[in-house]
Amino acid sequence: MSYTPERMTPLNACRLGLDTHQEPTIYLRQDSPVCRSEGFSALSRVLVRTEQRHLIATLHMVTGELLMPGEIGFSESAWKRLELREGTSVWLSHPKPVQSLSYIRSKVYGNELSQSELKEIIEDIVAGRYADVHLAAFITACGDDKLNIREITDLTTAMVESGSSIEWGLPIVVDKHCVGGLPGNRTTPILVSILTAAGLTMPKTSSRAITSPAGTADTMETLTNVSLSLDQMRTVVEQEGGCLAWGGSVKLSPSDDLLIQVERALDIDSEGQLIASVLSKKIAAGATHVVIDIPVGPTAKVRSQEAAEVLAANFKTVADTLGLKITTLFTDGSQPVGRGIGPSLEARDILAVLKQDPDMPKDLYQRASEVAGAVLEMVQGLGPGEGYKKAIEILNSGAAWEKFQAICHAQGAFKRPPIAPYRYELVAKTRGVVSCINNRKLAKVAKLAGAPADLAAGLDLHCKIGDPIEPQQTLLTIHAESSGELSYAVEYLEDHLDIIELAKDK
Amino acid sequence: MSYTPERMTPLNACRLGLDTHQEPTIYLRQDSPVCRSEGFSALSRVLVRTEQRHLIATLHMVTGELLMPGEIGFSESAWKRLELREGTSVWLSHPKPVQSLSYIRSKVYGNELSQSELKEIIEDIVAGRYADVHLAAFITACGDDKLNIREITDLTTAMVESGSSIEWGLPIVVDKHCVGGLPGNRTTPILVSILTAAGLTMPKTSSRAITSPAGTADTMETLTNVSLSLDQMRTVVEQEGGCLAWGGSVKLSPSDDLLIQVERALDIDSEGQLIASVLSKKIAAGATHVVIDIPVGPTAKVRSQEAAEVLAANFKTVADTLGLKITTLFTDGSQPVGRGIGPSLEARDILAVLKQDPDMPKDLYQRASEVAGAVLEMVQGLGPGEGYKKAIEILNSGAAWEKFQAICHAQGAFKRPPIAPYRYELVAKTRGVVSCINNRKLAKVAKLAGAPADLAAGLDLHCKIGDPIEPQQTLLTIHAESSGELSYAVEYLEDHLDIIELAKDK
Repeated sequence: MSYTPERMTPLNACRLGLDTHQEPTIYLRQDSPVCRSEGFSALSRVLVRTEQRHLIATLHMVTGELLMPGEIGFSESAWKRLELREGTSVWLSHPKPVQSLSYIRSKVYGNELSQSELKEIIEDIVAGRYADVHLAAFITACGDDKLNIREITDLTTAMVESGSSIEWGLPIVVDKHCVGGLPGNRTTPILVSILTAAGLTMPKTSSRAITSPAGTADTMETLTNVSLSLDQMRTVVEQEGGCLAWGGSVKLSPSDDLLIQVERALDIDSEGQLIASVLSKKIAAGATHVVIDIPVGPTAKVRSQEAAEVLAANFKTVADTLGLKITTLFTDGSQPVGRGIGPSLEARDILAVLKQDPDMPKDLYQRASEVAGAVLEMVQGLGPGEGYKKAIEILNSGAAWEKFQAICHAQGAFKRPPIAPYRYELVAKTRGVVSCINNRKLAKVAKLAGAPADLAAGLDLHCKIGDPIEPQQTLLTIHAESSGELSYAVEYLEDHLDIIELAKDK
Repeated sequence: MSYTPERMTPLNACRLGLDTHQEPTIYLRQDSPVCRSEGFSALSRVLVRTEQRHLIATLHMVTGELLMPGEIGFSESAWKRLELREGTSVWLSHPKPVQSLSYIRSKVYGNELSQSELKEIIEDIVAGRYADVHLAAFITACGDDKLNIREITDLTTAMVESGSSIEWGLPIVVDKHCVGGLPGNRTTPILVSILTAAGLTMPKTSSRAITSPAGTADTMETLTNVSLSLDQMRTVVEQEGGCLAWGGSVKLSPSDDLLIQVERALDIDSEGQLIASVLSKKIAAGATHVVIDIPVGPTAKVRSQEAAEVLAANFKTVADTLGLKITTLFTDGSQPVGRGIGPSLEARDILAVLKQDPDMPKDLYQRASEVAGAVLEMVQGLGPGEGYKKAIEILNSGAAWEKFQAICHAQGAFKRPPIAPYRYELVAKTRGVVSCINNRKLAKVAKLAGAPADLAAGLDLHCKIGDPIEPQQTLLTIHAESSGELSYAVEYLEDHLDIIELAKDK
């Protein structure tokens, strides 16, 4: 091989402090001799080597004075993956063609992908050999229903095998997933409390918000410490039967994290990739029994009962093959659940339900008990409705509330969620009945107010579909940590008063 | 509307001198208040406004000290499109969702795209509303044969209408295109000389190399000035009947330039997009009669006679509908044409053919005459073979050579191609017959030697398939402008001696 690093004059690494997210990026001066000799140009894929490590990165060119001759700049992700220090010697060359890209082309031509082809694709994705445009091609080629059940099953297995897995050594480890989150639908912490109080094991890892005003990890962060190592997580679970941790620190199904960012940008639904994404995370986390909550509604991810049934059937077939027990649940996806939207406000709702506060949001109490009931019926052999009854009993008895506090303490702290100093109330101008609530626009108001970065920011919704409304009645309250952000959210709200639609009284 | 630029505190523009190629990119500090309030994160698509202009850009975050608080950095493409100066006030907001992305999703679900949908997609691409991942999704969704003839026709029209067009006001304007270039297959300058000498109008615009060792524009640049404005091009064509200009300065079918870069990265063939790409450029350039050269061979883009015939038939159907006359030609794609590979070396071959040098590469002479003959037969009503005969006559008479010099002078100069000072000869170690030549690896050697940036760099191939070879006979010569590049190319060559395969003597 002529491209041994030793042969070429090395470049000196320079940290530029640029965050290009997951795509490792390098920066070279346009007049760099290596660009000329290797024929590199902007967006070239380049194999970057140090004496210890290597990765494939995308090249951006520098025409200004950002770099000195002989220097090579790095994005943060590239800098960290290569474990660089300032001035580390770096060699560049052309990467070998990525063989698995030809399987994606083959999928475009309508061919079925074999088990080994899917495995190679996922391995290359995890190794960083795919640029974002390649991920986009993979997602598009598998879009709609272009993966059959066998392919989905093999894809799931490949995704599990590409990362770490947790072994609990127990016959029953439960988990849940909700397809397409509704604002405020923060049932997970309540669920974990009920189910661990019922004696089950539920080592729950959750994500932070990516495009929503709050993820379960953001909400739990207002109440306890969520950045647990795998060892800390094990200790908490052994002690309390469950945990409520952030999934980011444990590398489960890492290809999923890479794909999901591009999937969001494209907004192309692939049923196969959705199923593989959800089930691979659950299997890697060591779950044996999983309940899948599928909210159905006009602004939810799944919009019709028929679509929900097809999705549920396919989830079931793939899970069966992989030895995972699942139950699917169809729930109402027409409006937010609970009152608060935003980390602290959702945490307050969760505490109200757990504490059985008379003023608690009934729909969240109801929803959490239903999902918990489905899990209990699945694993404890209870008849229809008995699980729900048992969940309600556990909540009402205060056992779930005690369990929740114990888990928080085991995770290192039980904190009070912060409260935002700035408020704005939207009042009804006319009499009427709430006929429609726009989930998407509500989420936008909460984000403009500062959620999730400002933990106390967001909004409180004071009405539900069907509620009669009097003039001057408060419909929602915006919470913000700064007056600038408050006015920002208010301006948007005033231009989008159709967020809550009122129909004339009957 | 609450998002009028006036309402928000503007950011100050800062030129970072980063070339991210076509994708406009902006850079913000991670602690920038606008990131928090708008919920922007790395890779967000952001609407960037100045008082005069706006565009959609991709956001990269800066974690270091590259930017001061209140500053926003710009890539070169974003800087130029917004016509910024240091410190220009800039406002950011969320772009409206791009409606046409839903048509791409619809294509993924197997639906046909309407004329207006295709038009909107192309308009959004030209307006810069698509990130590279969206272009990748569009290319993938249309891959293989997923566009029908009606869709290809409407796509072609949409691509033409999205950019400028040239009107020549003449009944016959000829052009040519070669599908999948072979190294050295530089027939275009000879063709233009023959056909304009025959009295035809051929206003030829060509591209520079993107992944190959030379484009026609690179080769012509060693002989004359190729950066002509549209007005200069008109003057040259009015005077000489033809030109040999670089297409980069005239904005014909601009969406094609954006798509082609991502198509290369993906290497996904879409017959529909290939046809639309080629025909849209020709129609926008004002051509009425076009010959399409389709090289067929094991390492060419089109690998079998059947594939070539299907492609030719579809080219014809679409061209017919759009009122463009075309002739397709199947040529030998199994090895390079001519001797030189690289701008200057190809220019030398072209001059040899035009001057009728006894040592000229016969295959290039032959190939150029065949393609020119096909054009003459198409537009001058000549019988089969008569066009070829006429082309040979024009070449042999010296009329093409005179015309070529006249066109170069009209373009501002007739220069002598530069010669490289460093050489390396590869000699045969054994006796044998040339059985196989690897086009791709030959191109790689020429690029490592410095082509196309170093105009004189590249290689000369001294043998063709079927040639008997004696031990110590020179098979190829590498040319380089620096000793470093020469040794670079030699190292690669020595590791890839299968570039030219010899079979044992019969």
